[in-house]
Amino acid sequence: MGNTFGTLFRISTWGESHGAGIGVVVDGCPPRLPLTAEDLQHDLDRRRPGQSRLTTQRAEADRVEILSGIFEGRTTGGPVAVLVRNDDARSGAYDHLKDLYRPSHADFTYDAKYGNRDWRGGGRSSARETIGRVAAGAIARRLLAEVAGIEVLGWVSRVHDVVADVDTGSVTFHAVEADPTRCPDPLAAIAMAQAIDAARRDGDSLGGIVTCVARGVPAGLGTPVFDRLEADLAKGMLSLPASKGFDVGAGFDAVSMTGRQHNDAFVPGPSGPVTATNRSGGVQGGISTGDDVVFRVAFKPTATIASAQDTVTVDNEAVSLEAKGRHDPCVLPRAVPMVEAMALLVLADHWLRQQAVNVLPF
Amino acid sequence: MGNTFGTLFRISTWGESHGAGIGVVVDGCPPRLPLTAEDLQHDLDRRRPGQSRLTTQRAEADRVEILSGIFEGRTTGGPVAVLVRNDDARSGAYDHLKDLYRPSHADFTYDAKYGNRDWRGGGRSSARETIGRVAAGAIARRLLAEVAGIEVLGWVSRVHDVVADVDTGSVTFHAVEADPTRCPDPLAAIAMAQAIDAARRDGDSLGGIVTCVARGVPAGLGTPVFDRLEADLAKGMLSLPASKGFDVGAGFDAVSMTGRQHNDAFVPGPSGPVTATNRSGGVQGGISTGDDVVFRVAFKPTATIASAQDTVTVDNEAVSLEAKGRHDPCVLPRAVPMVEAMALLVLADHWLRQQAVNVLPF
Amino acid sequence: MGNTFGTLFRISTWGESHGAGIGVVVDGCPPRLPLTAEDLQHDLDRRRPGQSRLTTQRAEADRVEILSGIFEGRTTGGPVAVLVRNDDARSGAYDHLKDLYRPSHADFTYDAKYGNRDWRGGGRSSARETIGRVAAGAIARRLLAEVAGIEVLGWVSRVHDVVADVDTGSVTFHAVEADPTRCPDPLAAIAMAQAIDAARRDGDSLGGIVTCVARGVPAGLGTPVFDRLEADLAKGMLSLPASKGFDVGAGFDAVSMTGRQHNDAFVPGPSGPVTATNRSGGVQGGISTGDDVVFRVAFKPTATIASAQDTVTVDNEAVSLEAKGRHDPCVLPRAVPMVEAMALLVLADHWLRQQAVNVLPF
Amino acid sequence: MGNTFGTLFRISTWGESHGAGIGVVVDGCPPRLPLTAEDLQHDLDRRRPGQSRLTTQRAEADRVEILSGIFEGRTTGGPVAVLVRNDDARSGAYDHLKDLYRPSHADFTYDAKYGNRDWRGGGRSSARETIGRVAAGAIARRLLAEVAGIEVLGWVSRVHDVVADVDTGSVTFHAVEADPTRCPDPLAAIAMAQAIDAARRDGDSLGGIVTCVARGVPAGLGTPVFDRLEADLAKGMLSLPASKGFDVGAGFDAVSMTGRQHNDAFVPGPSGPVTATNRSGGVQGGISTGDDVVFRVAFKPTATIASAQDTVTVDNEAVSLEAKGRHDPCVLPRAVPMVEAMALLVLADHWLRQQAVNVLPF
Repeated sequence: MGNTFGTLFRISTWGESHGAGIGVVVDGCPPRLPLTAEDLQHDLDRRRPGQSRLTTQRAEADRVEILSGIFEGRTTGGPVAVLVRNDDARSGAYDHLKDLYRPSHADFTYDAKYGNRDWRGGGRSSARETIGRVAAGAIARRLLAEVAGIEVLGWVSRVHDVVADVDTGSVTFHAVEADPTRCPDPLAAIAMAQAIDAARRDGDSLGGIVTCVARGVPAGLGTPVFDRLEADLAKGMLSLPASKGFDVGAGFDAVSMTGRQHNDAFVPGPSGPVTATNRSGGVQGGISTGDDVVFRVAFKPTATIASAQDTVTVDNEAVSLEAKGRHDPCVLPRAVPMVEAMALLVLADHWLRQQAVNVLPF
Repeated sequence: MGNTFGTLFRISTWGESHGAGIGVVVDGCPPRLPLTAEDLQHDLDRRRPGQSRLTTQRAEADRVEILSGIFEGRTTGGPVAVLVRNDDARSGAYDHLKDLYRPSHADFTYDAKYGNRDWRGGGRSSARETIGRVAAGAIARRLLAEVAGIEVLGWVSRVHDVVADVDTGSVTFHAVEADPTRCPDPLAAIAMAQAIDAARRDGDSLGGIVTCVARGVPAGLGTPVFDRLEADLAKGMLSLPASKGFDVGAGFDAVSMTGRQHNDAFVPGPSGPVTATNRSGGVQGGISTGDDVVFRVAFKPTATIASAQDTVTVDNEAVSLEAKGRHDPCVLPRAVPMVEAMALLVLADHWLRQQAVNVLPF
Repeated sequence: MGNTFGTLFRISTWGESHGAGIGVVVDGCPPRLPLTAEDLQHDLDRRRPGQSRLTTQRAEADRVEILSGIFEGRTTGGPVAVLVRNDDARSGAYDHLKDLYRPSHADFTYDAKYGNRDWRGGGRSSARETIGRVAAGAIARRLLAEVAGIEVLGWVSRVHDVVADVDTGSVTFHAVEADPTRCPDPLAAIAMAQAIDAARRDGDSLGGIVTCVARGVPAGLGTPVFDRLEADLAKGMLSLPASKGFDVGAGFDAVSMTGRQHNDAFVPGPSGPVTATNRSGGVQGGISTGDDVVFRVAFKPTATIASAQDTVTVDNEAVSLEAKGRHDPCVLPRAVPMVEAMALLVLADHWLRQQAVNVLPF
Repeated sequence: MGNTFGTLFRISTWGESHGAGIGVVVDGCPPRLPLTAEDLQHDLDRRRPGQSRLTTQRAEADRVEILSGIFEGRTTGGPVAVLVRNDDARSGAYDHLKDLYRPSHADFTYDAKYGNRDWRGGGRSSARETIGRVAAGAIARRLLAEVAGIEVLGWVSRVHDVVADVDTGSVTFHAVEADPTRCPDPLAAIAMAQAIDAARRDGDSLGGIVTCVARGVPAGLGTPVFDRLEADLAKGMLSLPASKGFDVGAGFDAVSMTGRQHNDAFVPGPSGPVTATNRSGGVQGGISTGDDVVFRVAFKPTATIASAQDTVTVDNEAVSLEAKGRHDPCVLPRAVPMVEAMALLVLADHWLRQQAVNVLPF
């Protein structure tokens, strides 16, 4: 339990960093959707390590195989099983971690919960687990584009104290992918890359923020009172490794506004009411308004750092740890496709759920 | 669908602001727990309107009746059904809202989703719906105290630009309840009350932040990869009316730290490793560390304001709205028991789930 | 947990035989469905005790109140909460049962599971619990009639060794309701009534079979591989008190046929293939064929009998029990609306689920 | 959706008869359980085709690979992913089935539901799908043996009109496996084998009954009111290909008993009440009694027969079909491990659920 996400578009992920591979089963994808392994590979390549000097040098091709649910190039309505084999699994590099708990990693808590743990590269707690999410998200992306013209786009809006200036309404996929930082503000991107390089050289690491927009979301998605659109987005985002916060629309900044400043006035639109502003972030009362859904996800600095740290052994004895291994000094660039994937999964799920709501002809 | 929360400690809420009443069914509460209506009434009284001049003057006694699941003063293991009748439901006061959409309320989105809506006082989207959550949370509170010594305490840590100075580790329930603002910093409480009064007089409203701590949480709660403890907390909090953001531990502030600054070093504790600091907020890898679980929830300023606002009618024509009705100029004081309730529900659920994990004797 | 049924049309029941009342929350009923308390009362009256001398004389009016989810005579899309207060709860009549376990009742197993039990009239294990199901089923009936022209009709096809001769294709609701036995074969109905009377006079009880047909079910409902239509029907039926078996189509009789005898040949129909026979019972591969869905449910003889029986006390000492209380010597007539309710719930759920399947226009 | 079974011990299966392979993800298996591929292979070999002349000659080794969730020979608490590649997938043999609907198969209903279908060997509706269930059942078997000493044993109790004489209380795994029919009554086994051979020579097929017993089940498993133990068993069994009926204890035979004949008297046992007889089949009120859980599953004759049959094309035109392909003239021998698997999954799930019930020390 705990490895399944979604109600009608439901995914179950499995796999560890240094096991045989990583995978996902997608149950509930509607039939007859054209789908190929390449559709998935594209997003997996964006998530893949070794894309630039900003990210970990673990050399994984992350080639995806679709094992079921496709016949003659289209989905069948049956579960789509996806497998990515682990290739570059040098678990020997982790032998020295077997007997201690790395600070702010999941080593200690997995032991506390399960009484054992796969200590090779973090095992199940590795960000490699998100391969399954990203593959499933690519299927949701294909579905949403086809049925509803919905597109989801994320970018790095902040690294440490470098804040990007990005227009949420007009930023493009092309602009995001133009730089290895995945920051579409070119000046900020340069500063971010410098900051990340400096942190790496200093044996340190940085956090940041991913902002994400979903465009073309029709009014009406989200299911009060618990499965509000923003509640499911929040859950999806906080389930990502290293994420520590989520807000939607004006979010935490709404705290310092008054009601008069924050409320989005309605004005007559061509085919119904629209909001003159979007401080709500595209959701009101847990349901999409028809405006862009906009939210932010905070990521902490990478827990693995190339500096000596105090910690304890599994036998509760003090010890000093100097990390070796391969790691990202800043997860933000690779976090973008993960954030998009979770948003796509939530939107696909709620889009399907809405099909069962408005069924009466009167 | 969408009105159920939890896996093993599962609640289903129902009811509208001006219908017959509000209620909840709690399924999964373990048998033999001593429980009376008074246990629930206590938290309901903290959520109830009319507690002070800071809150809405709707006069509701909110008397709770337990309809099932209790026999001779103890739970039976069957579902506990709870009913609170609506008394002061002056729906006539809402007649003028029937034909228009209030800005930043759920009027428009409910219509977009369902094709109709109960326009009396917000219907299902009213914060009155949280009565069911608070009643269920009181049951979870009783259970967690009994089985695990867990206590959950929230307080208002910020209203608009007034920020409280509170020590998370030592703040007490008594200190929180000592002031109608539910801010345990006396000086900040005075400033908050003044700010709220000023906003009311100005026909405006304010937002703020609730901070919440769970003490006594054993290491091991939370179920990766999707049902992480912070992911379920985030979902619970973002499902509350008017909430716009969530973070855990250092949260959004972690963004401006480096890994060296943010990592929590482990040190040997009396009965196993403990963290020297708690920037993680009591969760690592989605699982509780044994330290205090600490998180924040951002609430927007109340959407209802006593000022003229531009909006549209249900026929998409521009109109000016001047709200009457009764409302809170700031939801924060009454949001505290709601935040606690959702945290209690998440913790009770994960505590029960953990009972099915460590079952092997070796 | 365990008190919720369904995925998209989801019900949660609560209540005990001698508590404050019995109820249900229906979550997922589409908005704008016309619905009144009378729609529910009709089926509740068919389930109600005291309808004839064949059934228990407990005098319950079972008046239903809808507490939420309806506005101006139509559903809102929010949860529909239903309450039936217990009136004639003479729990004193059960005092002598407090300290012993009635044979083939749930007294012992509830104690084994929960460590306590509400011994008044069976508590949660009483068939009175099915009030919530029947009320919810009535809502599903209204929905299915409106959206799909589906009707569900059950009848008593056997009591003990009296077997009715009924044409599944043409039997009507009127014919079923014409006799208190709910057997539409008049000669068999007379024999059944005599058998039940004889059993009562003899201090004994009888079992039997309810046969049920769902007409107008479109091809395509049911979700392999686990949520097959017949699998969900089987679960629903075996969750009814006193049920011991389920089969669909030729069912257990299929065992003595060969493949040539059992297979349903397809023949060209006016708007697509149809089956020349219906030994499949309207489902193939877990999905409805478009033909009538036909199934049977076996009920054991009522466990409560007016004869002395050997049993044990809660202290594991042998004792003789002579039941007093009020009970049905044969549950079959009142089981008919319960069987229909579960079938209606399953069909409504799968009809809604199917709306999220065929969404692609190509 | 629809491809997941269970609440706390939850499986998700995937795969088609002639795709890349078949698999399952098991989520919720407790950590530290010793588990190897061989544990799974044993039950898969019992399910595998080509075991004897009684079964299909499709030559599949069905070698299992565990892809995740095991570390150093023990489960980690993470999801266990299992893969069996398809080897002998001669899909060319099914080319003639592409354009028509085989009687009493799922060809027509899959098309009706999904608008397309994988026509190679039945695609997802093939009994090959049960590989995932049997593999998962083997994990449940290992768990139940370890934590509770529960064992589950099924056998063929009837083929067509040959009825076996088997003592449910004493029959052994060895006796069942001693004959390719999986009927532990040697004389009946001979007659069954002859009947199956005769049916094959005649181009026909036979159905039958599997009886199954679960021993060592403690009192208290099962979750009223919907997730009764027998309700979940019924769902599991009716989700198996070709199954048409389920009953528990005296089942359909209870119909012709009176209450006096059917009730199981309690007598004092060494450590609490026990039932003198077991017509209840080990469940009362949806909860296990502590006695053997005994149930039956009816299977129809195999739909594929080597005789000409009337059917229609996908264009709704009459046509005659003569099946080629490889098939079992009687599925019963291979159905035994499938029935056991579903029972094991239900029992593991309810055993884990019960761990979250009795948590209060008083």
